[in-house]
Amino acid sequence: MKKFKVIAFDADDTIWINEPYFEETEKKFCGLMEDFLSHQGISAELFNIEIQNLSLYGYGIKGYILSMIEAGIKISNGTLSTKAIEKILDYGKELLEKPVILIDGIEATLAHLSQYYKLVVATKGDLLDQHRKLHLSGLGKYFHHIEVMIEKKESDYQKLLQRLEINAKDFLMVGNSLKSDVLPVLNLGGTAIHIPFHTTWAHERIDHTIVHSQFFTFEHASEIISWIDN
Amino acid sequence: MKKFKVIAFDADDTIWINEPYFEETEKKFCGLMEDFLSHQGISAELFNIEIQNLSLYGYGIKGYILSMIEAGIKISNGTLSTKAIEKILDYGKELLEKPVILIDGIEATLAHLSQYYKLVVATKGDLLDQHRKLHLSGLGKYFHHIEVMIEKKESDYQKLLQRLEINAKDFLMVGNSLKSDVLPVLNLGGTAIHIPFHTTWAHERIDHTIVHSQFFTFEHASEIISWIDN
Repeated sequence: MKKFKVIAFDADDTIWINEPYFEETEKKFCGLMEDFLSHQGISAELFNIEIQNLSLYGYGIKGYILSMIEAGIKISNGTLSTKAIEKILDYGKELLEKPVILIDGIEATLAHLSQYYKLVVATKGDLLDQHRKLHLSGLGKYFHHIEVMIEKKESDYQKLLQRLEINAKDFLMVGNSLKSDVLPVLNLGGTAIHIPFHTTWAHERIDHTIVHSQFFTFEHASEIISWIDN
Repeated sequence: MKKFKVIAFDADDTIWINEPYFEETEKKFCGLMEDFLSHQGISAELFNIEIQNLSLYGYGIKGYILSMIEAGIKISNGTLSTKAIEKILDYGKELLEKPVILIDGIEATLAHLSQYYKLVVATKGDLLDQHRKLHLSGLGKYFHHIEVMIEKKESDYQKLLQRLEINAKDFLMVGNSLKSDVLPVLNLGGTAIHIPFHTTWAHERIDHTIVHSQFFTFEHASEIISWIDN
């Protein structure tokens, strides 16, 4: 018997690499701004502005570029050159054109699971950017569809379950973020698998451990197969 | 007998006012840049950059802000002040916080139709921004859900019909854009109603008239009710 009606996979840093690209961009931004502040100070200021803008811009690269420009102007006390702002726009465009690099073993796992389960992508970020990455990944054929979510809180998962017309107990979520992919799903009565990625955005970190009968941690996506077949 | 399984409504300038807000913002942008070029020249340059960036940024306000900054730097030959760029960021935030003003008669029409038909919102734009507007409009209760689409071409409507699990002949689209809401739907075999708005973005204009047995033009949304009840 099938254990779940739908298995949802987070995308960024679960299916493909994402956070390292943002870190690379932030490093360039810190280099651009280093006459004004330490790298650490710049990162902290950028993070503050990103979080302040989250309710207005949402997640994704376009909001990140706008926040970098705002942070650059603030950090420089309004003295940042137009040339530097042009560079920030370029960083953003480069970020939107990064190659899609799959996480090890994800394709074989999806190919196997898609034979028996309805799979969906459940991700935050820019609508166009996430669709672009799914297209370039070549993995679209394994998924019923992609859901680009505004947030990944309990109420957002509740809406997702309504659209999928299933109960939480028939839902498995797989992702790299304890805060966004695991906790809200467990709270609703679903099952969650955490596959940690080596780096996590500060906004996605939580500072406690999770103990729950419907919570599992694997090192690689491929471990889902033997677990689910049992 | 019900004529359609799903009726989809475009959102911007069909359910609520949108284009006048963009025009107001563009006017402010032209004012900011008028030392460099005529208003007409500025608008043309901004439009060019918007279209160039469309494949990367997609539709919506965030991409529009980024394109305004890029256009401002280009038009000024890189001499635009940081103060002016800060103003463009502010214009964008103001645009993201505009009140939601409903088009006359739309609420009564939706209230009536939702008793008999499954209604969805089918719109382009920023994911968060469109959800915000639907929430503020108070009209969410009439819709099964909102679909924020990357594009509104035939292939995009085809995907929409697949997700809705219906045939084109059971689909009615209502909107203000002949290019995005009418032509692709007619080409797929669906029915389309055009409700013109007094102003249309250049990118959405077409230069020929449409004659088609499944195409209808109404002045007000309320006319749908007597038409559909016949």
